[in-house]
Parts: sequence; C-alpha cells; structure tokens
Amino acid sequence: MTIVLVGLGVIGGSFGLALKEAGYTSVYGIDTNETTLKKAKKLGIIQEGFTDGEEILPQADLIIFSLYPTLIAQFIQSHPKKFKPNAILTDVTGIKQGIIKEISPLLPDSVDFIFGHPMAGREKRGIDFANQAVFKDANYLLTPTVKNQEKNLVFLEQLVKELGFKKVTRITPHEHDQLIGFTSQLPHAIAVALVNSDINEKTGDFVGDSYRELTRIANINEELWSELFIGNKSNLLEAIDLFETELTKIKVAVAENDTKTLKRLFIHSTERRSQL
Amino acid sequence: MTIVLVGLGVIGGSFGLALKEAGYTSVYGIDTNETTLKKAKKLGIIQEGFTDGEEILPQADLIIFSLYPTLIAQFIQSHPKKFKPNAILTDVTGIKQGIIKEISPLLPDSVDFIFGHPMAGREKRGIDFANQAVFKDANYLLTPTVKNQEKNLVFLEQLVKELGFKKVTRITPHEHDQLIGFTSQLPHAIAVALVNSDINEKTGDFVGDSYRELTRIANINEELWSELFIGNKSNLLEAIDLFETELTKIKVAVAENDTKTLKRLFIHSTERRSQL
Repeated sequence: MTIVLVGLGVIGGSFGLALKEAGYTSVYGIDTNETTLKKAKKLGIIQEGFTDGEEILPQADLIIFSLYPTLIAQFIQSHPKKFKPNAILTDVTGIKQGIIKEISPLLPDSVDFIFGHPMAGREKRGIDFANQAVFKDANYLLTPTVKNQEKNLVFLEQLVKELGFKKVTRITPHEHDQLIGFTSQLPHAIAVALVNSDINEKTGDFVGDSYRELTRIANINEELWSELFIGNKSNLLEAIDLFETELTKIKVAVAENDTKTLKRLFIHSTERRSQL
Repeated sequence: MTIVLVGLGVIGGSFGLALKEAGYTSVYGIDTNETTLKKAKKLGIIQEGFTDGEEILPQADLIIFSLYPTLIAQFIQSHPKKFKPNAILTDVTGIKQGIIKEISPLLPDSVDFIFGHPMAGREKRGIDFANQAVFKDANYLLTPTVKNQEKNLVFLEQLVKELGFKKVTRITPHEHDQLIGFTSQLPHAIAVALVNSDINEKTGDFVGDSYRELTRIANINEELWSELFIGNKSNLLEAIDLFETELTKIKVAVAENDTKTLKRLFIHSTERRSQL
C-alpha cells in the first residue's frame, strides 16, 4: 500500500509520524515547501518528497489531503487523470458540506473520496509542531457520501484506529457541520472574544488555570479559521445565539441577586459536563 | 509557630498537605465535619482536629480560613476574645472588597488579618480532593489594608512561596475584584453558558480538546460561585459586557463574510495570548 500525504503541515506531519509508528513504510509527501519536504524525509516520515503530484500520484493507493480547504480543489484540478484507479482519497477539513459540494464534481469516477475530520488540532503551524500524540484517544468523524464504498470506509476506519484514534463515528455532513459549529468553532470564537475583551495590561499576574485553559485556542491560525467560520456561517451563528441566550440568563440572575436561578444554572452545567 | 486551618475542604486540605510537605508540624484543624477531621489527622495534615475554636484558637500564631465567604464573619463573631494577641489571620476568598468590609469591624485590634487569594482552585469539593500540587507555580494575590503590618505581609508572602506559589502580588481590593471578575468569574460564566447551550444529546462523540478545556470549569460548586458572582456583581457584569461586545464583532464579521476583520481579530487574540 502506497500512501501519499498532500500537505505536510502540523496535521499532515502528524499523520506521517503516526503512520511511521504504526509501521507503514511506503509513504510519500507532496508539499510546495521544499524545506518541509527535507525535514519530513529527515524525520523518517516520508521516503521521498515532491513539490507536485505528477510522478507519485499514479502510484498512490491512499491520499491524505491535509491542506487548507480551498487548496484541495485546486490540487485536484491541476492533476487531472493522475490518480490511480480505485485510489482512496481523504481530507481533514473541519467543515464538510462545502468541501463535499466543491470537490465531488471534480473527481474521476475511478477514485473514492471519503471525507473525514480528525478531531485533533494544534494551534501551532508547520511540520516542526507535528506530533502523533495528538491523535491518541481522539475522536474521528467520517461523513460518507452515496459514492463511498463500504469496504473503503471500513478500511479507513481501521487505519485511523491504528494511528491512535479511539472512536470513529459516521455522520451526515449536515449534522457534522451543525455539531462542529457548536463543539469547535463556538469555543474558538469565545476564546478569541475573551482575550480581545481584556482591558488590563497586568492580566498575566492574575490568571489561574481557568483563564489559561479558556484562552489557549485564542492563539489561532487566522487563514484557516476565517475560512472555517465563514464556511459554516449559519451553524456558527446559530451556536453563538444559543450561547448568548445562556450567558444572558447568568447576567440577569446576577443583576437581580437571583441566587436560586444561578444555582440552578450551575447544577445543570455540572451535570451535563460530568456526562462528557 | 502554631498554625490553625479553619475549614478543611479542598483548599484548606491542600494548605495542610503543603504545610506538611514544607516541614510544618504544629498544625491544627477546625471543621464542623468530624469525618473530615479524622481524615485530616490520618493524612498527617493536622496534629489534632476540633469542631470549634475554644481550645486551640488561643494558641494560634497563624490562622488560615478556607471557608465559604459568608461563614468567616460568623466564625469570628462566635469566638470573641479567643484570638492570641499578634496572631496573623488570612483568608482565601475569591473576592475581596465585600469580605474586607464585612470582617474588618469584627476584629480585635490585637490581630492582623491579611486578606489574600491563592489563584489555585479545584472544581471538586472536600478534603478527598485536596492536593498541594495545585499551588505549584500558581499566582497568589494579597490585598493589604492600612491595618496590616509590613513584617506580617512579608511573613505571609514568604510562607506561601514555601508552599509552592510562584508569584505573590500586592494589589488594592478594588483592582483585585475588577481583575478577578475578568480572569476568573467571566471564564466560569462562559463555561457554564457554553455547556448549557448544548442542544444535542450526542455531543460527547464530537468534542475535541478545545471544548473539553473550555468546559472543565462548568463543573462548578453552586454554593460558592453563586456567592462569588453576586458578591462581585458590578465587575462581573462589566466583564460580561466587554466580552459580549467582542463576540458581537466576530458574529458581525462572519455574517457579512468579512474575512479581513475576522483575520484582524484572530491576529490580535493570538498576539495577546502569546504574551501570557
């Protein structure tokens, strides 16, 4: 099995390290950055690196795209007829409806593109921060389309479990984007807003674990996340609305010295959080 | 030096463990819960436990109150004239202006109450969750009053550093409450609102590190935090307002496909977070 990693940033690099650890040796890389390719080879992640797909794509049984969402379509369009028949392609994009709609019409019938989302990111960019440990026990979501073959879905599910993921869930692209708007994009919006609302210069001396934890992801890749936020606009805006409604309940209870309501809200959140 | 811990919950117990580790042996405990006192003695935290202060208070050189804010005044009032002359008293309450105003008039002139705030909490309650590791490298805030003696302030600063705290900062009660409204209470309000805005039953399969981190503190002690929120009402409401303003900026940018503004907000939060 020949595997080609397209994009060797922090996620593509982590796939490379996890594949190496799991014993896969026939792994190649494509990246526009030659320094990245050299690093990947030195790390033993890839056998060889390429700045385009001409040479290696025809041999690839599995292609993992770890690119910015808008770059995947561009890559496929610039390599027409280069894919090996029956190749499995997959991506790691954080929202699915848009990418599926964009990519599906561009694909030759002979390949099977399984759209997926490893729930394991890092705020840092680039291969230097790649680390397979982030995959350990994480969730993986697959959003099958009618074109996907069951055997290929099962193959990918087993592979990502070999790479450390704990639970692989199949879900519709619609449901995926709605859930992700809440569990991933809303927390990022909150973290950014929290840090940006800091009016004091001395905050650093006064923070505890809670502020540190809530703001880690305010260190955010602006290219990627502006694409993700706008690409999932309606779900994200709905999630923000629901959150604001709950925050308003707390605000009103505090303003009115309504201890009873505050306690009820705290008990409810404690119960729900404990179920996670 | 005889030290008395009043309240042996998760924070009082952690002080006990940290004192033990630092080599302090003449440590006693007061708690209304006899099981807690037995556990504390078994853990080697205290030499002896008492359900009231009659016997041990007259010997105490240092008294650390780790009680719910409203209970400290009650305790002092029920033990008039029991304090040793020149005793140092301190508390761990998360907001300071209210408690200072409440406690100061109740104190005999012969004792020095230094109001403080270790920035190291746990969401769990009770001595079973006490752990001195939470103090390691944490921040400690002191809010001196005009009555405090410099030598006693220096003594307490040195002691808490011995117990693992990294930085001790003196700050006015007013500034403390404003900063804590932002760095501690606002994050708790956000975490509670985030968990409570979850409309899906299956969320658990779809969460990554970010949601887990942002919601850990949604597991919240409703008795303590309803007191803290309402006791710091104006600062907390102002912090929520500032946060909501920033969240609205993100919402408007997403709604208007305003990539440029989104990127600017993300770059700003990344810079500020990196300074922490």
